[in-house]
Amino acid sequence: MSESDSVLIGRKPVMNYVLACITSFHGGSKEVSVKTRGKAISGAIDVVEVVKRRFLPDIKVSRIGIGTEQLPREGYQASKVNTIEITLKR
Amino acid sequence: MSESDSVLIGRKPVMNYVLACITSFHGGSKEVSVKTRGKAISGAIDVVEVVKRRFLPDIKVSRIGIGTEQLPREGYQASKVNTIEITLKR
Repeated sequence: MSESDSVLIGRKPVMNYVLACITSFHGGSKEVSVKTRGKAISGAIDVVEVVKRRFLPDIKVSRIGIGTEQLPREGYQASKVNTIEITLKR
Repeated sequence: MSESDSVLIGRKPVMNYVLACITSFHGGSKEVSVKTRGKAISGAIDVVEVVKRRFLPDIKVSRIGIGTEQLPREGYQASKVNTIEITLKR
């Protein structure tokens, strides 16, 4: 597995993504980026907090980036969504 | 006005909080912290992005912190909520 991995947060239960992060760290990743857009942002923070508090207390949040992405939609104005990327480091 | 201010994001329209940030910077603040908890986290990012893109392009995000707070509730188990604090600097 690569040194740096990323986990994209969607609508599945939080524990699915928590497991993905843990698996990645256990597989040898030094860094895992948790990324998401729009309404799932609160869920990304859930994932990070659960990983840190319950499973891997030795990891640190090394970077948090926020931004906006344009989503082009056919026949409509492009809509803007917020993004967040939280990088965890062991 | 103080050097450093904070704006607590709740359920009002985004522009209310955007205005609060701008007013604070115009009043002489060097730093404004946008704070919130729980489901309003996505809204906090909205506020920051609107302030940066539309009104004050010279400000920078200097720090983003995430965490968890315990909310004690009478007769129930304490519930946990996620928090975010985004510090803007001019």
